[in-house]
Amino acid sequence: MKVVIPLFPRFTALDAVGPYEVLSRLPDASVTFVAATRDAVSADTGALTLLPGATFADVDACDILVVPGGPGTRSLTTDEELLGWVRRMSAVARWTTSVCTGSLVLAAAGLLDGLDATTHWAARDLLESLGARYSNERVVVRGTVITAAGVSSGIDMALALAGLVAGHPVAEAIQLSIEYDPQPPYDSGSVAKARPSTVELVRSLAKRRTEGAGTT
Amino acid sequence: MKVVIPLFPRFTALDAVGPYEVLSRLPDASVTFVAATRDAVSADTGALTLLPGATFADVDACDILVVPGGPGTRSLTTDEELLGWVRRMSAVARWTTSVCTGSLVLAAAGLLDGLDATTHWAARDLLESLGARYSNERVVVRGTVITAAGVSSGIDMALALAGLVAGHPVAEAIQLSIEYDPQPPYDSGSVAKARPSTVELVRSLAKRRTEGAGTT
Repeated sequence: MKVVIPLFPRFTALDAVGPYEVLSRLPDASVTFVAATRDAVSADTGALTLLPGATFADVDACDILVVPGGPGTRSLTTDEELLGWVRRMSAVARWTTSVCTGSLVLAAAGLLDGLDATTHWAARDLLESLGARYSNERVVVRGTVITAAGVSSGIDMALALAGLVAGHPVAEAIQLSIEYDPQPPYDSGSVAKARPSTVELVRSLAKRRTEGAGTT
Repeated sequence: MKVVIPLFPRFTALDAVGPYEVLSRLPDASVTFVAATRDAVSADTGALTLLPGATFADVDACDILVVPGGPGTRSLTTDEELLGWVRRMSAVARWTTSVCTGSLVLAAAGLLDGLDATTHWAARDLLESLGARYSNERVVVRGTVITAAGVSSGIDMALALAGLVAGHPVAEAIQLSIEYDPQPPYDSGSVAKARPSTVELVRSLAKRRTEGAGTT
């Protein structure tokens, strides 16, 4: 089970590492982080840097494609070289997936035209402007395309996918191996649950964090 | 708010990246991944490689220390150089924290003697053998020492810590920014909830994954 996760400057680390941590535990899985070159790739904070294991040119097939999000996705939506690679990978993959604003890349590649899909809550309009139909489910499975909501939702997405590819017992074992029995100390993880003041605070913190570039 | 996360060979990536993703969103936070040298450090799968931003010798203070777990923690429990650094950091830090088997390192450093603490469920006996009292809470806060259970629990731990250091509104905003509204598709995330056959399957998958070295 070959899992490929593209990296790009200013990706959001948990978008990529959540699914990696789950899918790498599938029996006989191999996960490869792929980027334009073999140079290190820094996440949106600048504080986390991953070394890719291969370049886009090296990789021409996979079973599972996972496109993470992050502020860096914005420029990818007009990067024809990258979008071409995403289309070619998706054409041969069994599963095409995204986390957070990774779905903007799938949409820009034309893979979500008229399809129900999700993204980070703050990028809903952008996703729709690229041709997808926004769904507010946390994990949206439509045929062989799976999109997940913001950042942490990639863990839920990957567990659902693990069940689809390896069966429920294996997915349950993976959940136990990462002790995923979530107990958030607050209940503000979605726009539906959060107070309006919390939504406003997210926007102002995001501005400080990335100097106006957005953190989604 | 200076956050320091030590890396070591065969760490578990989500243990480190979960808290990083939360704590990096604190106002005025800086997160630094630290390792013995500036060379890249590979996680337990061999498929994910992080570049540290500093060496242990470079870093002599922090506000928050986060020790991740992974099979690589076993050899750290007798690494006097590393344990000395952990003790020095903890002595000046406002908060000393661990995720998963990172608590074995804190315990080996003498920081959990007689203290309630947690770890990955499969490492409970090992934690107790190092002088801590195992608690089956997901996040154990005792004074300025916080330990979290397996792998994914670092997200819950970091959100609780965000609330302690920056107040509830900020922690709630961080939860919303990473859209942490968990909806696991299964309910086998703890030993108390999982079937015995799931526990057995975890052990056999772990053997395959790391060729007998354990994934906790």
